[in-house]
Amino acid sequence: MADQKLLGIDLGGTTAKFAILTLAGEIQQKWSIQTNILDEGRHIVPDIIDSIRHRLSLYGMTKDDFIGIGMGSPGVIDRKAGTVIGAYNLNWTTLQPVKEQMESALGIPFEIDNDANVAALGERWQGAGENNPDVTFITLGTGVGGGIIAEGHLLHGVVGAAGEIGHVTVEPENGFLCTCGKHGCLETVASATGVVRVAHKLSEEYAGDSKIKALIDDGAEVTSKDIFDAAKAGDAFALMVVDKVCYYLGLAVANIGNLLNPSDIVIGGGVSAAGEFLRERVQKYFDAFTFTQVRQSTRVKLAQLGNDAGVIGAASLARKFIK
Amino acid sequence: MADQKLLGIDLGGTTAKFAILTLAGEIQQKWSIQTNILDEGRHIVPDIIDSIRHRLSLYGMTKDDFIGIGMGSPGVIDRKAGTVIGAYNLNWTTLQPVKEQMESALGIPFEIDNDANVAALGERWQGAGENNPDVTFITLGTGVGGGIIAEGHLLHGVVGAAGEIGHVTVEPENGFLCTCGKHGCLETVASATGVVRVAHKLSEEYAGDSKIKALIDDGAEVTSKDIFDAAKAGDAFALMVVDKVCYYLGLAVANIGNLLNPSDIVIGGGVSAAGEFLRERVQKYFDAFTFTQVRQSTRVKLAQLGNDAGVIGAASLARKFIK
Repeated sequence: MADQKLLGIDLGGTTAKFAILTLAGEIQQKWSIQTNILDEGRHIVPDIIDSIRHRLSLYGMTKDDFIGIGMGSPGVIDRKAGTVIGAYNLNWTTLQPVKEQMESALGIPFEIDNDANVAALGERWQGAGENNPDVTFITLGTGVGGGIIAEGHLLHGVVGAAGEIGHVTVEPENGFLCTCGKHGCLETVASATGVVRVAHKLSEEYAGDSKIKALIDDGAEVTSKDIFDAAKAGDAFALMVVDKVCYYLGLAVANIGNLLNPSDIVIGGGVSAAGEFLRERVQKYFDAFTFTQVRQSTRVKLAQLGNDAGVIGAASLARKFIK
Repeated sequence: MADQKLLGIDLGGTTAKFAILTLAGEIQQKWSIQTNILDEGRHIVPDIIDSIRHRLSLYGMTKDDFIGIGMGSPGVIDRKAGTVIGAYNLNWTTLQPVKEQMESALGIPFEIDNDANVAALGERWQGAGENNPDVTFITLGTGVGGGIIAEGHLLHGVVGAAGEIGHVTVEPENGFLCTCGKHGCLETVASATGVVRVAHKLSEEYAGDSKIKALIDDGAEVTSKDIFDAAKAGDAFALMVVDKVCYYLGLAVANIGNLLNPSDIVIGGGVSAAGEFLRERVQKYFDAFTFTQVRQSTRVKLAQLGNDAGVIGAASLARKFIK
């Protein structure tokens, strides 16, 4: 049918977000439910199915109104089988046959990919990526993740580890230890906790006046937002911390530019709420670490979709079912 | 026809290499001519056309025996228009309508891409890349170049600058000045001249006995090969130089792994003649700078096709004309 819809699901450890989209990418309905991770996460998929059934009935829609359903999920995804394993914030430690459950219950074709990749697809399709064929997305949140679209294709790599921008080594010597087991990962210095980690490290050598430095010395809790706010207000120490974070981000983003020459490298996630103040400082190092052709053609941008990137990108996965 | 062939051309500043291949990638005929770059390179394409006509007549073949012709060229390529500009080692400073000239003279469909990309396609198809969908190729020669194949597609980027691995920044602070105008590029430390540059730099601080260090101190000319040969023979200073070069290469290759998770990262070019001695040292740093999933799934390999990579990859471009 000409006016069939896409259904996107962005599954997280706290909530599952849903959206019904037109094929052109316009959100027509949006809702969310809490994620019940009890009992090894076995309620998650049934809750999602119930919620979809309820909403379809509410909107007077049937399975025939949908081209397909797309989902972004944490964990290790087998896209072909449609399974998830090792999604610890969902308590999914064993193999979950999500596609099989969804398709047999709802009768709508189903596609799944990992949550960072799906957010990248969303920003590329309807956000800062302007639907260009070459777009890289970086999300700075509790961790640092990302997704790479090149020549119009989302990259997965040989075991699905492509786009793990958080684990690019930006400090090869004496870098911080990362949760992944190696040292010097971008995530250790550019995630929300990474920014604070850089502040603690630099505070050891900083002698001047600074509210942030005083808080750290007092053992008070300081957040990434506190540091960016203080920097914006002119705190010299906070500015030094932000500059160091942007140096690492700029180096990573520049080398993505040098390797892939995307039209757009899009920065999202909680830390990117610092906005243009962050972006322009990343741009400064991007300019220093890229060669001319890339410096002139690859743009460093802020994300535009916020929390909607996930559902929009998830919905876009279902476009593969368009005949 | 079932037994139609591909014709590959690898155009360089000294010679143009040709090969006739089966659709399965087997070389059936191979020849080369000298590149005449006089008169602003205006003889180059006519010489290529003459050579192909001569060979086809020699082999009793006609245009109908060919699916298409593919070419790898230096310079800035417009793939769609089939033109080349800015290929200074060919004296091609103005726009060259290569596709138009070739197709109107020979009547065989023609496709063109840049030489490093084409070599990457060759190693991916018939060499160390084992025809996998995700393969990165790095060539260490006079410069450092490369090509990236991801999800089965050769990456070009928004202005064709993707795969410029030589300009990845590996030394963000106090790096050597590169011909591209920025500092700290991989090419400044891992090309043939880059290896010698690293030796000169390290020689300033090295106090022990070393044949290589003595030659440098005497102002004698030392090549990359001299340094690798001395390192293999146990020269402590040469070993230090090789280790530093492999640290930079390992860092760049590791971050390609962290971003793209290819099945294979293939190292070719003149410097890679050092063989397993080089590869194992790059692997050491690759292991240090990659996270577990990538370390376990992405392989660092030596190229297998040598000079044939170019003609084989060029021929593979013409597979797009298979109906």
